[in-house]
Amino acid sequence: MEQIHDIQVVPCTNSNYLKPFRVHYNQNGTKKSWDFMRTHDSVSVLIFNTTSHCFILVKQFRPAVYMCEWERTKEPAVQAAAGEEEGAAAAATAIPETPIGETPQEEAVATSGGVKTHQPPGSAGMTYELCAGLVDKADLLLEEIARQEVLEECGYDVPVAKLRRITSYSSGEGVTGAKQTMFYAEVSDENRVGEGGGLPQEGEMIEVVKVPLHEAMTFAYDESIPKTMGVIFSFIWFHNNMSPKYKISTNV
Amino acid sequence: MEQIHDIQVVPCTNSNYLKPFRVHYNQNGTKKSWDFMRTHDSVSVLIFNTTSHCFILVKQFRPAVYMCEWERTKEPAVQAAAGEEEGAAAAATAIPETPIGETPQEEAVATSGGVKTHQPPGSAGMTYELCAGLVDKADLLLEEIARQEVLEECGYDVPVAKLRRITSYSSGEGVTGAKQTMFYAEVSDENRVGEGGGLPQEGEMIEVVKVPLHEAMTFAYDESIPKTMGVIFSFIWFHNNMSPKYKISTNV
Repeated sequence: MEQIHDIQVVPCTNSNYLKPFRVHYNQNGTKKSWDFMRTHDSVSVLIFNTTSHCFILVKQFRPAVYMCEWERTKEPAVQAAAGEEEGAAAAATAIPETPIGETPQEEAVATSGGVKTHQPPGSAGMTYELCAGLVDKADLLLEEIARQEVLEECGYDVPVAKLRRITSYSSGEGVTGAKQTMFYAEVSDENRVGEGGGLPQEGEMIEVVKVPLHEAMTFAYDESIPKTMGVIFSFIWFHNNMSPKYKISTNV
Repeated sequence: MEQIHDIQVVPCTNSNYLKPFRVHYNQNGTKKSWDFMRTHDSVSVLIFNTTSHCFILVKQFRPAVYMCEWERTKEPAVQAAAGEEEGAAAAATAIPETPIGETPQEEAVATSGGVKTHQPPGSAGMTYELCAGLVDKADLLLEEIARQEVLEECGYDVPVAKLRRITSYSSGEGVTGAKQTMFYAEVSDENRVGEGGGLPQEGEMIEVVKVPLHEAMTFAYDESIPKTMGVIFSFIWFHNNMSPKYKISTNV
């Protein structure tokens, strides 16, 4: 899953997924404008397997993460283009004028903006995440969407009634404004009805990963393991809220 | 700060902040492509005032959040346009063909795609966040950037040596691939050298907000208070790691 080849980056003038809009507005007498993108809200699920006492995460190649990792290897070029206003928050960008690279082999050397860089291995773009999905079906409850994601990505069939809402929060305050709702699901080996892995017809290539309970807190704070804040937060939420029920290491 | 007027949304074909790129690649023999945006990494800071035993947050109007809230009031129109592939994750978009609204008064009625919607009050776009900023200066340590943000946004002058790194994580795995590093800073009233509020010349309009320690956990899990996951996670991190030092309510 980590064999990444034939990388080519091109400017994208007509994306089906990233369509910038600009909103003009007046805030307390000051005229402002802001560029944003429309998106769907999302759900995520912390899955705990009570048979094996493991958390069930998904691991997948994230092209955007990979490109950022690659960018860091030629840091000076990125930073020189920086200096957008802070108010633009996560939206500010350092834009290359030319494709970043087109490399037939891993660890190949690419040239971008005059800076020679080594293409990192595919593992540089792999991240550990909670099982998650978009809220893109109008007629379904969040719980039902969460249930479908658990089934598709991780292969567990968990009844909607067993999904516990943890909380919700803004997941893209700068650019998308979307909201994410997080659930907790306890499953057992008996709920395992498939391999998971996502929907290949939709291009998904997802590895189901188990993190043993006794390693969870170390995993959460190990910065060498690329992961989302959802993983970190939910492991700690479990530690605080489920520890009367399940033993968990507290050496953090 | 919450008086939002004269809202007009237009498609944005040439944003300085949101520039989509497309990466073509081959993953384990399968040709794929993904649309992403370049961005800067960021830092965030959990600030605790030891004089008043309060957390110091920032509150600001987020146009993207506001537009999402507005969109939710005409949910059927959004959902009908949905159905992008799950693999696009946070990037999938439901795009209006016409401006969403141009309304001279709050609570005005706008028409978009045949759906009449009420413009929500400005408070619908206000979010509570950790003090944060972009890593857009090549010659500065993350700690130094964090220190500057604490000063600009919250008015506290805290020595770099007093910044404690909490952890780092992927903050935009689907679209930007950026990384955020979170710090903890203890300040006292003696460190307060200004009002904060951000840089007006850069369009920033930031309210500094105090959350008393004994209300922190209730605040964290109150879904009626719009906030980022950084706020929730860091309050709980404090609860777990600083409770031997400071009393904190544990009724969650």
